[in-house]
Amino acid sequence: MQRRKVIGLAGAGVVGAATAGAVAWRSTANGEAAQESADRIAFYGERQAGIITPAQDRLHFVAFDVITKDKAALVDMLQSWTAAAARMTQGKEAGALGAVGGLPEAPPEDTGEALGLPPADLTLTIGFGPSLFDSRFGLRDKKPAALADLPKFPGDTLDPALSGGDLCVQACANDPQVAVHAIRNLARIGMGVVSVRWSQLGFGRTSSTSTTQATPRNLFGFKDGTANLKAEETSLLDDHLWVRAGDGPDWMTGGSYLVTRKIRMLVEPWDRTSLLEQETIFGRNKGEGAPLTGRSEFDEPDFAVRGDDGEPVIATNAHVRLAHPTQNGGARLLRRGYNFVDGSDGLGRLDAGLFFIAYQRDPRRQFVPVQMRLARQDELNEYIRHVSSGLFACPPGLLAADDFWGRSLFT
Amino acid sequence: MQRRKVIGLAGAGVVGAATAGAVAWRSTANGEAAQESADRIAFYGERQAGIITPAQDRLHFVAFDVITKDKAALVDMLQSWTAAAARMTQGKEAGALGAVGGLPEAPPEDTGEALGLPPADLTLTIGFGPSLFDSRFGLRDKKPAALADLPKFPGDTLDPALSGGDLCVQACANDPQVAVHAIRNLARIGMGVVSVRWSQLGFGRTSSTSTTQATPRNLFGFKDGTANLKAEETSLLDDHLWVRAGDGPDWMTGGSYLVTRKIRMLVEPWDRTSLLEQETIFGRNKGEGAPLTGRSEFDEPDFAVRGDDGEPVIATNAHVRLAHPTQNGGARLLRRGYNFVDGSDGLGRLDAGLFFIAYQRDPRRQFVPVQMRLARQDELNEYIRHVSSGLFACPPGLLAADDFWGRSLFT
Ligand code: HEM
Ligand code: HEM
Repeated sequence: MQRRKVIGLAGAGVVGAATAGAVAWRSTANGEAAQESADRIAFYGERQAGIITPAQDRLHFVAFDVITKDKAALVDMLQSWTAAAARMTQGKEAGALGAVGGLPEAPPEDTGEALGLPPADLTLTIGFGPSLFDSRFGLRDKKPAALADLPKFPGDTLDPALSGGDLCVQACANDPQVAVHAIRNLARIGMGVVSVRWSQLGFGRTSSTSTTQATPRNLFGFKDGTANLKAEETSLLDDHLWVRAGDGPDWMTGGSYLVTRKIRMLVEPWDRTSLLEQETIFGRNKGEGAPLTGRSEFDEPDFAVRGDDGEPVIATNAHVRLAHPTQNGGARLLRRGYNFVDGSDGLGRLDAGLFFIAYQRDPRRQFVPVQMRLARQDELNEYIRHVSSGLFACPPGLLAADDFWGRSLFT
Repeated sequence: MQRRKVIGLAGAGVVGAATAGAVAWRSTANGEAAQESADRIAFYGERQAGIITPAQDRLHFVAFDVITKDKAALVDMLQSWTAAAARMTQGKEAGALGAVGGLPEAPPEDTGEALGLPPADLTLTIGFGPSLFDSRFGLRDKKPAALADLPKFPGDTLDPALSGGDLCVQACANDPQVAVHAIRNLARIGMGVVSVRWSQLGFGRTSSTSTTQATPRNLFGFKDGTANLKAEETSLLDDHLWVRAGDGPDWMTGGSYLVTRKIRMLVEPWDRTSLLEQETIFGRNKGEGAPLTGRSEFDEPDFAVRGDDGEPVIATNAHVRLAHPTQNGGARLLRRGYNFVDGSDGLGRLDAGLFFIAYQRDPRRQFVPVQMRLARQDELNEYIRHVSSGLFACPPGLLAADDFWGRSLFT
């Protein structure tokens, strides 16, 4: 049932619509293929994949509302999701492609559009939103304090319909069709239990999450991810990324908190500003990504340096100064965002921006204070608008094939 | 000024925000690089690139309204667009990345987000919509009869704000950031002259346009593009794709007409149907893409064959029967569509579908009759909705560097 094998098979070889459904692909269910592949990322492990995994090129992110009050149905779905996710991340289909159990009337258990495509480094990362911990499923006592709703930030223009969610799944892959296929099949499996609340495609990663990756550029043309937390900085990750025993409820130990912000970028006004202004706003130059006080990308910015005019070379309201750990009690984030273009806005402009994603040990001490400072002072605010917000608790990884997403939370 | 060279350059090496803008990248303007590249598609040629070019993986399509009444300004912009398009398709920036003409206050002539990215097979294809030929620019006499507005089709649920347009540009590339960068820079160059009317990203091509390409799958999981016109079928292209001398006004000879239809696909109901029903609707099987009367993908469908039950094996209302040339007076299309997912629809469903693109010699004899038949009878209609429509006249290619988009039309 591995995609690349399926595709090579000859057709059913039987004419007649009445029988085609029943026989197609029957011969493809020939067990697992153990072989390793360069573009396949392990699903099982101590941590969920998709956090420190070197950021893939494409994103399909989805937030779901749970529409049942039946906890058993929800747990059941999470079990089915886990099984499908374990398969899909390894380049297999979510389930049977043909008639299920020989019943020609049963819908296929996989939608088919990823047939023939490689695993493409697909990762699927699950998170649980604050709203899941209301009265419906008896989870109040399990709610981590760190999952407190985000405060309203100055300038926020959030659309509630594009924010929040009981559950989220982040699908990252190097082929968008693979990421879309995965989300779509999870939504299919979840019919009647969950409903898509909002969903976002991202096409160009805007952060490197590993020192092995070159730094990509965001839609303002700047390198993005330079001063990011990186997968290789293991002791920093222990301090800033992974939840520790004692931080909160046990089920989150080894997990991480995810903040998403859909940030519209007003590209047209930006494109009318000078390079000088652009570089002043970020505090880095555009070509190299070097801090304005340095020569190359990875030079540490020096916020004390003043220019000939006596002004700080990295302006007091420059983005990298305001976001820097030294200005935020040492707070760091693992950023993992993607560019988006959602068509146009009806006012003659592209509806484009950054789907900001950040993982951390505790949003109350990391995302919240950093964003509060940015929201108050960042010169960049003239060119951006936060339009959606999400907060999710992402548990640790699954170690065994009989474990499933949410087991430690629900049982 | 070639992207891959720019990226390798050392930083400006000058600290101080006051000067960074002025000097950055100055040293990069070191002329053209003549070298050929595997992922670079010629901009100049008898035909516009992006029509029979083997379909690239990603799309950014944009329709513009002209917002000036000044014909000279429009012509001027088309000249600037052509120069920028010739550069960008070759992997160069649209213009200067640094301070233009040494003026630190001037905005850069390229937005920068494609720095370091390869040409990625970028093609930019221009088209002129029916509305351009109204009274504004004195083009009434030059309007081809084949550019008559499309009729309303049964079942159409078009959004006028997402339809039409005076001009369009189709950007196809194997990297979405490259396609987005190109459209965004054309929009930037066009400020004050044109305004984005609507714009669409597509992530998975749904047609092969060359016999060298494997057939991709659409979001219903079926192979799409099997019976497409292919680049290699040159005599069919002469009959069905390219406008001939005498077909209409001279300026379109050697060009082609483009129809776009944004077609929402109701994936959730589709995912609840059986494989049998899915295959009956298309008239092909899902695994191989073979016609239900054949064994392998490229077998000719035989519409006369009946099954044991006496019914036609390929149903009378099956998509491939209704769309087949033998049912449409021989009409053929060169399809070049892309899958899209535009988030969700607020009703718990993915907003997904096919951005249908077809090129042809005369829509009145090709797209219109085929779509009329499909709109009336296709069983697929239960699962799709046409939400946007576009029609554009795409002139032939440019042969010389002093020619420009629209010259034969405007002068
Ligand atoms: C559209 C909005 C944003 C854009 C275009 C943007 C862009 C950038 C750029 C170009 C850099 C410098 C390169 C780098 O180190 O990655 C940067 C750094 C950074 N940004 Fe943002 N950013 C945005 C929003 C945010 C938000 C909402 C946060 C968190 C609340 C944030 C946190 C950071 C942090 C922590 C750094 C590293 C600062 C340092 O340690 O030097 N950014 N951003
Ligand atoms: C969401 C809407 C649509 C879907 C999912 C779809 C899908 C397909 C599929 C799976 C095939 C068979 C494989 C192939 O030959 O490519 C096909 C064939 C075809 N389709 Fe569509 N199609 C859609 C809309 C349209 C429209 C709007 C037109 C034109 C008005 C069209 C024209 C054709 C043609 C001409 C063929 C080839 C028929 C033949 O010669 O056998 N399709 N389509």
